[in-house]
Amino acid sequence: MARMLTWSDRFTPYARRIIPSAIRGLASLPRAADTISFGPGEPDPTLFPVDEVAERLNRIMAEPAVARAALQYGPTEGDMALRERLCGYMAAKGVKCSPANILLTNGSQQALDLVVELLVQPGATVMAQIPCYPGALQIFSAHGAEVVPPGAQGPRPALIYAMATFCNPTGLSLAEDQRGDLVALARRLDTVLVEDDPYEVLRYDGTELPPLLGFERSVEEARTFYLGTFSKSVAPGFRVGWIVAPSEVIEKLVLMKQSEDLQAGTLAQACLAGLFDFATTVHASRLRDAYRIRRDAMLSALDLEMRNLAHWKVPDGGFFLWLTLPGIKDATALLARAAVAGVTFVPGAAFHAGAGGENALRLSFSAAPVGRIAEGVARLAQVVRDSPV
Amino acid sequence: MARMLTWSDRFTPYARRIIPSAIRGLASLPRAADTISFGPGEPDPTLFPVDEVAERLNRIMAEPAVARAALQYGPTEGDMALRERLCGYMAAKGVKCSPANILLTNGSQQALDLVVELLVQPGATVMAQIPCYPGALQIFSAHGAEVVPPGAQGPRPALIYAMATFCNPTGLSLAEDQRGDLVALARRLDTVLVEDDPYEVLRYDGTELPPLLGFERSVEEARTFYLGTFSKSVAPGFRVGWIVAPSEVIEKLVLMKQSEDLQAGTLAQACLAGLFDFATTVHASRLRDAYRIRRDAMLSALDLEMRNLAHWKVPDGGFFLWLTLPGIKDATALLARAAVAGVTFVPGAAFHAGAGGENALRLSFSAAPVGRIAEGVARLAQVVRDSPV
Repeated sequence: MARMLTWSDRFTPYARRIIPSAIRGLASLPRAADTISFGPGEPDPTLFPVDEVAERLNRIMAEPAVARAALQYGPTEGDMALRERLCGYMAAKGVKCSPANILLTNGSQQALDLVVELLVQPGATVMAQIPCYPGALQIFSAHGAEVVPPGAQGPRPALIYAMATFCNPTGLSLAEDQRGDLVALARRLDTVLVEDDPYEVLRYDGTELPPLLGFERSVEEARTFYLGTFSKSVAPGFRVGWIVAPSEVIEKLVLMKQSEDLQAGTLAQACLAGLFDFATTVHASRLRDAYRIRRDAMLSALDLEMRNLAHWKVPDGGFFLWLTLPGIKDATALLARAAVAGVTFVPGAAFHAGAGGENALRLSFSAAPVGRIAEGVARLAQVVRDSPV
Repeated sequence: MARMLTWSDRFTPYARRIIPSAIRGLASLPRAADTISFGPGEPDPTLFPVDEVAERLNRIMAEPAVARAALQYGPTEGDMALRERLCGYMAAKGVKCSPANILLTNGSQQALDLVVELLVQPGATVMAQIPCYPGALQIFSAHGAEVVPPGAQGPRPALIYAMATFCNPTGLSLAEDQRGDLVALARRLDTVLVEDDPYEVLRYDGTELPPLLGFERSVEEARTFYLGTFSKSVAPGFRVGWIVAPSEVIEKLVLMKQSEDLQAGTLAQACLAGLFDFATTVHASRLRDAYRIRRDAMLSALDLEMRNLAHWKVPDGGFFLWLTLPGIKDATALLARAAVAGVTFVPGAAFHAGAGGENALRLSFSAAPVGRIAEGVARLAQVVRDSPV
């Protein structure tokens, strides 16, 4: 008699390739009761514009025709008012585009997944700077792609993935000439450059740099696709992001999104369209002020506690600091000890497709209370000092 | 010199297989200014519980801690309070399950797409009753599956798809013994039965039948996956649906959803958790009363106008009536004439994977004002009478 099929026997190769992310398992580590978390890269919920969201929801719900439209099905492409505002936003970055160049997605995670579904087949190569955002590595591996560094020799890559501004996990940005070089590399390799830009609004120092897409002659002729999100600038719970690409590409992505989940949330999009001007001016400025203080608090504490234990570079924005610890051989084992001592982070290995990052870690200053950052860094320094050599 | 790659040269086989749905093109047909639409299967937005949604949003936003949680990232599996309420809802249908058996999705469209990604590879066979929901046909074709009728000879199908209650497009339901037979067929063929159940709350006549999943010994041992949605019972703009399946299957689907878009909207889920009891009792009863009147108005008008022109069966619920017109050879051409005459519908061909349905059409009574249904049916009858034989 034939053996009964197990569930995993029935799963497709795609489904089988998807395995839990390294970060996911870390949440269940035993830890001290008063643990200070530098782990998750979540925005601080006390900075969400609750009053303004509430007011906008009230306005939508107070007008029956508006309320009904916000609760009904909407176009797969997304809310036209929101796409028009995004055109203005992109124009201020030097990128001229029309609503036909924009698809609204469930956050930029879905935008990236759609682009990978569009371009990447099993066995393909994807170029990405390592260390890299684990959510992107998860998508690449789910689609059977091998990750290689930008400029690596080999077959034409299916795409180049880049977080050029305040990169997760390093916090660092590409300089202007490096941006131009990356766009030129994509053209020379005849491939697509995917610019993931979730942190761009959170600049604390220095002058704004043009996005990679700004180095293209026009969006219609571009091989750079731009991914944006409201998850950092307003709130992730709305699950709304966007992609800017040539209209022929958007048309195909729209069909894919229609087949996969019809559309992003209608009420969420209506709310964000109404909040747009506030979010990109007053609120963005508030966020920068609040997170800058945390970054500076973490930098001060690192200078005080870890100057002889670790190396880091100062990020001009975003949520993260990347530490390299010459005396540490396994940052994942370090995390287990740190959690017991009351501080957490994400080990560097989580940002690598294969080996690597064992002596590095990511600190997020976005969600820890500012008054506890120094204590958290002191605890970390103590655990590093106490580590076996 | 090598030819420059076009965009479509770069697209994956999956992306290339996705083509516009037949329904999509129909929206742009020239039509009379006062056209009565029996086309889209959308709920009537005047029946959305706007006041109750507004009140619930107010309550969420009034409590800072609750508001912040509703705007923050949430678990990929979905809001625990909402999953717990769904367990109670499923229990009332005779299905005992725990939150570990439930994943919240962006509507049931995403639930079906995830299941197909989980189980269906290009070249596979999917069994589905034809005529069939076009959104399901689009997913099957995108994944390279061939659709065959239930019970067809051939290799083991990757899954059987069924809308057992108030089917889109026929409006009809499987009888109790047919339900048991279908569950037994899936077991005999050693495959998975996917029960898509978006209209179950909208029963106007007759007694409730157990879902297909209710014929399984337990959810953990089931090969039936149940797909539900709030799109008909509350509002589609929230984009929240759910899937009930064995916990091992849910675990894998959670990882896939995490990779694809992290999670459904947090605020939407919080709002639906709060509305749950109202939605499934008072509001469900209101919806049934309102839509029953429309169904009856359409049935009366059909009896009056089309008794000699078409055949139909009376649906006990849902949004749709399915007409077969012996005198019509091409319902798509009929639609073009009908739109000019001021009435629209969806031609039967849209619900077929290949040929078929040319002499049939779907009428939706969900969104047309009740006072115009008789006029719309009269216009349709006139166009049918005027059609070349």
